[in-house]
Amino acid sequence: MNQTEKIGFVGLGIMGQPMSGHLMAAGYEVAVYDLRREAMEIAAEHGATPCASPAEVATLSDIIITMVPDSPDVEAVISGDGGILSGVQRGSVVIDMSTVEPATGQRMADLLSEKGADMLDAPVTGGAVGAQNASLSIFVGGDEAVFARCRPILDVLGASVMYMGRGGMGHTAKLANQILGVTAMLGVSEAFVLAKKAGLDLEAFCEAATQGAGDSWHLRTLGPKIIAGDFDPGFMAKHMRKDMRLAAQTAISLDSPAPVTALIGQLYGALMAAGLGEEGHHAIVKVIEQMADAEARA
Amino acid sequence: MNQTEKIGFVGLGIMGQPMSGHLMAAGYEVAVYDLRREAMEIAAEHGATPCASPAEVATLSDIIITMVPDSPDVEAVISGDGGILSGVQRGSVVIDMSTVEPATGQRMADLLSEKGADMLDAPVTGGAVGAQNASLSIFVGGDEAVFARCRPILDVLGASVMYMGRGGMGHTAKLANQILGVTAMLGVSEAFVLAKKAGLDLEAFCEAATQGAGDSWHLRTLGPKIIAGDFDPGFMAKHMRKDMRLAAQTAISLDSPAPVTALIGQLYGALMAAGLGEEGHHAIVKVIEQMADAEARA
Repeated sequence: MNQTEKIGFVGLGIMGQPMSGHLMAAGYEVAVYDLRREAMEIAAEHGATPCASPAEVATLSDIIITMVPDSPDVEAVISGDGGILSGVQRGSVVIDMSTVEPATGQRMADLLSEKGADMLDAPVTGGAVGAQNASLSIFVGGDEAVFARCRPILDVLGASVMYMGRGGMGHTAKLANQILGVTAMLGVSEAFVLAKKAGLDLEAFCEAATQGAGDSWHLRTLGPKIIAGDFDPGFMAKHMRKDMRLAAQTAISLDSPAPVTALIGQLYGALMAAGLGEEGHHAIVKVIEQMADAEARA
Repeated sequence: MNQTEKIGFVGLGIMGQPMSGHLMAAGYEVAVYDLRREAMEIAAEHGATPCASPAEVATLSDIIITMVPDSPDVEAVISGDGGILSGVQRGSVVIDMSTVEPATGQRMADLLSEKGADMLDAPVTGGAVGAQNASLSIFVGGDEAVFARCRPILDVLGASVMYMGRGGMGHTAKLANQILGVTAMLGVSEAFVLAKKAGLDLEAFCEAATQGAGDSWHLRTLGPKIIAGDFDPGFMAKHMRKDMRLAAQTAISLDSPAPVTALIGQLYGALMAAGLGEEGHHAIVKVIEQMADAEARA
């Protein structure tokens, strides 16, 4: 252990487990908590200290990272029973790397501030592969001096660490980024279904379209997977559904209309209803295809 | 004049005028027709032969290119009074480079076929700048041998000439490409309006988002223009409105649902109602902004 800051890590899921591992490999002492005992046992085998609660993690740590699924989970591990708030030390920092509603993050930051602790919002993109390879992109919001203090830790976890401004701006950037991605995703889906029905060679079209104004990360990366019928999740559809709900909530709270994003959120609802939530978020193309099949039968 | 194929060019607008000029510069003899006499005069100054009708163009030409605004215009210059059909020679080729409904293209191809003439559909992307710089991307559908015959001519006009398959596949690829682009465009619009309302630094966000899964040609190219308030048209909003109508018609005729594209078509309708049709198609962000302002006042 050659690092001076002691780290706490709350949430050892598909993202948190490899991320906490990278921190230990980089020489940090890491205290961990997860609802699932077996997840803590895996971390302990790599040298982590398992704790009985987020509060205990906080008492042992200078910097506490939270990486949990959704806004209510962030609230539970910070302000709930046995939460970080009841153990956090003056001068500590909580870095929330979950994707949650900016308003929730702000409430948590205010509560932590009353205890003399700081908060950064640092949601990530890059999915499970990015967590495993430490190649995540991280959007960070919060006090700039606090960011500077935490940057060495974030650099262990991500390839691209981007300061977006005051508290909440990390969450806002992440949601705006999801809007950029999911709209391109639906473009790929509707274009491919139309092109396929018309008899176009999808492989030739995909390659041609990346040359021009139709190009996007989603076309380049997920277009070939859709053509190959590969729906393994880089990012699970159910998580995109959740992010669309967060984007819609945020848009409403800001009086910022997002009609296309709202519609796409509903299409991801149809995806959940079709039982496709555990597939990659590009499985949304199947929802459009199913609508097409229903049209053709009608 | 060192080229053996004689070319006809019908439609000397913002696209057709520079395109016909490139062909003359490449040594082709070019006969031209446009509804506007002054457009023909400009072409004549560069050596073109002005004609009284598309039919006369066809009698003088081995290969006739049509570059007109919309489906009814293509029908008018091919099958209307004094149209190409009444002058076209057996063995000639009509290359329609307009963006029209695939079904219209197919009807025109059938009529030309009865006269012993071939047809290629070869719609372009790249806009006015692409036409001026001969850097267009061209999606081509039609008989492969006819494509091979016409390829040298298409290579004069575009930087990327892509064979998409049988007749109609060029139009289909173009419409599918517009779906890819316009969805990314709306993603940029809704993400930027939400981000701005939340107080995010748009320049930092735009740069950060191009690093990951939010990246697209539209974000890279038009994001900075939106931030700078530059709405000069690379591609006019009213033309995107038309392409969305064509995409919707095509989707309906194929029983291929495109709910997101349909909604975006309606948002471009709102753009027309707001008098923004002559701005660049990225002016759609103003429609979202106006909705946001109305929300905030309500």
